[in-house]
Amino acid sequence: MTKPLAIIAGVGPGTGASIARRFAQAYSVILLARNAANFDPLVKEINTAGGQALGIRTDLSDSKSVHSALDQITKQYHGSSLAAAVFNVGGGFVRKPFLELTETEFSQGFESQGKGGFNFAQGVLPLLLQAKGLQYPPTLIFTGATASLKGSANFSSFAAGKFALRALAQSLAREFGPKGVHVSHVIVDGVIDIPRTKAWQFEHEDAKLDPDAIADSYWHLHTQPRTTFGFELDLRPYVEKW
Amino acid sequence: MTKPLAIIAGVGPGTGASIARRFAQAYSVILLARNAANFDPLVKEINTAGGQALGIRTDLSDSKSVHSALDQITKQYHGSSLAAAVFNVGGGFVRKPFLELTETEFSQGFESQGKGGFNFAQGVLPLLLQAKGLQYPPTLIFTGATASLKGSANFSSFAAGKFALRALAQSLAREFGPKGVHVSHVIVDGVIDIPRTKAWQFEHEDAKLDPDAIADSYWHLHTQPRTTFGFELDLRPYVEKW
Amino acid sequence: MTKPLAIIAGVGPGTGASIARRFAQAYSVILLARNAANFDPLVKEINTAGGQALGIRTDLSDSKSVHSALDQITKQYHGSSLAAAVFNVGGGFVRKPFLELTETEFSQGFESQGKGGFNFAQGVLPLLLQAKGLQYPPTLIFTGATASLKGSANFSSFAAGKFALRALAQSLAREFGPKGVHVSHVIVDGVIDIPRTKAWQFEHEDAKLDPDAIADSYWHLHTQPRTTFGFELDLRPYVEKW
Amino acid sequence: MTKPLAIIAGVGPGTGASIARRFAQAYSVILLARNAANFDPLVKEINTAGGQALGIRTDLSDSKSVHSALDQITKQYHGSSLAAAVFNVGGGFVRKPFLELTETEFSQGFESQGKGGFNFAQGVLPLLLQAKGLQYPPTLIFTGATASLKGSANFSSFAAGKFALRALAQSLAREFGPKGVHVSHVIVDGVIDIPRTKAWQFEHEDAKLDPDAIADSYWHLHTQPRTTFGFELDLRPYVEKW
Repeated sequence: MTKPLAIIAGVGPGTGASIARRFAQAYSVILLARNAANFDPLVKEINTAGGQALGIRTDLSDSKSVHSALDQITKQYHGSSLAAAVFNVGGGFVRKPFLELTETEFSQGFESQGKGGFNFAQGVLPLLLQAKGLQYPPTLIFTGATASLKGSANFSSFAAGKFALRALAQSLAREFGPKGVHVSHVIVDGVIDIPRTKAWQFEHEDAKLDPDAIADSYWHLHTQPRTTFGFELDLRPYVEKW
Repeated sequence: MTKPLAIIAGVGPGTGASIARRFAQAYSVILLARNAANFDPLVKEINTAGGQALGIRTDLSDSKSVHSALDQITKQYHGSSLAAAVFNVGGGFVRKPFLELTETEFSQGFESQGKGGFNFAQGVLPLLLQAKGLQYPPTLIFTGATASLKGSANFSSFAAGKFALRALAQSLAREFGPKGVHVSHVIVDGVIDIPRTKAWQFEHEDAKLDPDAIADSYWHLHTQPRTTFGFELDLRPYVEKW
Repeated sequence: MTKPLAIIAGVGPGTGASIARRFAQAYSVILLARNAANFDPLVKEINTAGGQALGIRTDLSDSKSVHSALDQITKQYHGSSLAAAVFNVGGGFVRKPFLELTETEFSQGFESQGKGGFNFAQGVLPLLLQAKGLQYPPTLIFTGATASLKGSANFSSFAAGKFALRALAQSLAREFGPKGVHVSHVIVDGVIDIPRTKAWQFEHEDAKLDPDAIADSYWHLHTQPRTTFGFELDLRPYVEKW
Repeated sequence: MTKPLAIIAGVGPGTGASIARRFAQAYSVILLARNAANFDPLVKEINTAGGQALGIRTDLSDSKSVHSALDQITKQYHGSSLAAAVFNVGGGFVRKPFLELTETEFSQGFESQGKGGFNFAQGVLPLLLQAKGLQYPPTLIFTGATASLKGSANFSSFAAGKFALRALAQSLAREFGPKGVHVSHVIVDGVIDIPRTKAWQFEHEDAKLDPDAIADSYWHLHTQPRTTFGFELDLRPYVEKW
């Protein structure tokens, strides 16, 4: 008997890890990241705790790399259905005055988010469409940000990428929703409480988003029946200005 | 020992009832509706099933009626904290060509949604602010609709009301979020599967929103920690055009 | 030979006056305001300069008052077509913490903007629909604000009113656009340079919106052919944060 | 004595040509297109009519090609100020089911709109910033589409590109507005009446956008003073569904 699968793209020590832990309570999870150091400790942690996890080094902005990862998954998990796929690839984006940006720097936002989201969606959608015997509708969730809705000064690269990702998510929700696949877009508006931001101080306590709580919302979206699909949810700390 | 309370305004045989049942799993629920026939069967059902429910006849568009209901609640449930309040008051709105609308008909949308939402929020916010010992942050959720985002032809009354309610929800989220109250706005985009719509046929099955699934999403929003408040979520059937 | 008419509702010493002057270059203008002191100097100024202007004391939130004004107009200007109508009624709204608002204060936003916009639209649309021989399509423009898109803390009354007005404008554009009436909504995002704000100092010069420039945009919208109707335009000073 | 300049990127027989003719009434216009056949007749037409026009073959998605064009402009028009720059590069995008899209096809939307908009903005903004002695603030306008706001099924490539372009426009407006450059984004929502769409029949007459009217709106935006910059305007035929 094989568990259904969940594929999480973009797993570091933050939100991606929390999502992986949450979905590993029900599914066998596959973690994609460019750097194995980003998923190795988590794979060990989940497997040790009685779950099932596998990491595959994948460059989401490279279609060959994504297809290779998906090939490995379909072979290794033959007979398992894909229940959920989460695109949570982070920034690495450049924030600088517009006239100092190179074309390559500007394109990084799209490479990471637009092309990355495209490659991931093309890889997982055929599996989501053919999934069978699942408790919940097969689900594809994209992680957005403040920059999904607002192009701020000096953020043109990241905003262009996140706007493009939101366009993709809307287009896929409209095409694949009627085919039974639940496509969602979560706008994470604020600083997330991860190792990299531990030192960031704010006036109020609890001013940073809890990655485990974000993961709970992703799980909730996944459990919705097809009569009642949530498309977009915005999450922010109670003290966030917006 | 007293359970925390949840107040649901706008309880008929549809979404409000599902929300009441869901929140009654954890809380003592108080149901507000203009007509006792709308809550009597549900109150009996919940109490029979081992929960606690009380119905109070209330006209949400009348501030005196709302304050009277709240007075009754604070007396009767002295010592209980208010954990959640849901404004789910329905339409009763008029859909007709603009030049045939009377001023009274046009104002119905605002009376029901804008003023109703105002009266409800003014009544429950003081209780939510002083709530203590709760497992989850005190929560105030407003029910929106397609008309919260789009003013369609012949829908000016309802859209004006739902736009006003969304403005109110945003304003309250920004004022009371930093005070620890979770304010949310759920956009229900589609036809809900309730007795009144049972006969409505659609091309696809499962084309109507499931009120129990809507209620699950309200409960999920309620359980979010203050680090990670969701403000807006849109829900629609998988085959809905949008 | 009679000039076509333009009706401007909400005329004080600011934007309304600039709009009136701009439209008076082509049309006979009728100015509506609750207080004759708001239009008397302007009526004199326009008539002295060779234009045609008339002021009518009107309470836009009172349908009888609006209908009485329209009756006077149709009699006095028998045979003239209504070319443009502008709803520019200002705030008078209350900005205070939500729990200090009375129901009446909260409703002021809707009374002024929602009901005011409704009454005005019901009065002028029949005239716009029957207008003949005009150079440009008959036009109905509503004035919005920052609060048309965002419900800020302490602004629930004004935001509820401005959201409702935008819902109305959208609904009317969708119903009356296909009938040849151009309905627009202009979002004025920032402080306008009027006598009341003269003393307000900003870090940069030219930080306040110029009412004459706003009026030029209203006129531009009016001149668009029905093939190319603009619905929404946002205006703000170059240094405005948004 | 040299006239100020206007650069129009994306000139074919439709909107770009109308914009060029409109701005040629005041400025010396430079037309950029990949294919000289797209601007040659227009250059001849404008020059014959007493205006000044020059066409430069440019691939907007290639930064070298854009910089080469700009180099030619700065040399040839030494001493002239750049008054306006319009990015009106069209689609060439692929509309097909998502799973049939290649990575290259998906990226075309971003290559054309995102990267094209970036290259154009990087080329013209230094010239706009140093412009002197102009009657109106230097202006940069981007052409959007329905797909700037909505990712429809089968339109992921085009929507990703247009969303990215809107993100770029917002970011530039916020960075360069305070430096005196007027950045705008016009959403053209509907079919434009150009040679390619001449045969398209609609139920109503005048159901296609008039490119000359679009051009008038671009010119109007250009003439706004810095106190009163319009950022976004949506244009559609009076019978368009939206």
